[in-house]
Amino acid sequence: MDKPFTLHQRLQEDCFTVKDLPLCRVLLMNETRYPWFILVPRVAGLTELMQLSDADARQYWFESALTQRFLSTELNADKLNVAALGNVVPQLHVHHIGRFSHDEAWPAPVWGKFPAKPYSQDASSALISQFIEYTQGEPG
Amino acid sequence: MDKPFTLHQRLQEDCFTVKDLPLCRVLLMNETRYPWFILVPRVAGLTELMQLSDADARQYWFESALTQRFLSTELNADKLNVAALGNVVPQLHVHHIGRFSHDEAWPAPVWGKFPAKPYSQDASSALISQFIEYTQGEPG
Repeated sequence: MDKPFTLHQRLQEDCFTVKDLPLCRVLLMNETRYPWFILVPRVAGLTELMQLSDADARQYWFESALTQRFLSTELNADKLNVAALGNVVPQLHVHHIGRFSHDEAWPAPVWGKFPAKPYSQDASSALISQFIEYTQGEPG
Repeated sequence: MDKPFTLHQRLQEDCFTVKDLPLCRVLLMNETRYPWFILVPRVAGLTELMQLSDADARQYWFESALTQRFLSTELNADKLNVAALGNVVPQLHVHHIGRFSHDEAWPAPVWGKFPAKPYSQDASSALISQFIEYTQGEPG
């Protein structure tokens, strides 16, 4: 039997769970400096994008584009950073970060730049609700 | 008439041209610390992955996976970093970097870490030839 999917401990600690799309668990990094979502395909044992099956790759692309559109059109990000790194947390997870030309790290990448500045409960709830509403009724 | 594709000046300066796949121009960053390829879809005016047409997205995925397999199976990279950032060079370009647990930046991301250590002509030619050979005869 295949091993069931479980979210890596480090992602659990650093992020809020937003929702499950058909393929990916969507997380929100607890860092107010940038709207920073993480997509984790719920398939056990994956470490690289190239390991997605053809069907999962198509679904991943759809869910990634949806998240990108949310950051771009709902949150008016100036630029999107979409990255699968995983040097520290090997479980395949893809950062989707809305960047602004006035954000604190701009134009540098965000990783390792600052210790996270956590959300207030109201602020994280509002952003999570906005994402859930935006992605409701998507064909998936 | 659509504007023709031209490679951003900064990418021209920092990289070698490896080859044109059906969609992407493949570049090799002139930095010996890591095998660092960049895929640039040859479509004028793109800045984000989500802007690729459905057909181009499928082709991009194929070419990205091919590049990932090259890094993983030919060069034995321990981990792949695949990232579309573009905060400095807005033209859509996607980094495909083979990482090793003994590389100089590990486990940090590579951007902004060190000034590039350029290839000797022989070393860059050998790596470029290896990529060209590996990707020859791909259906595209």
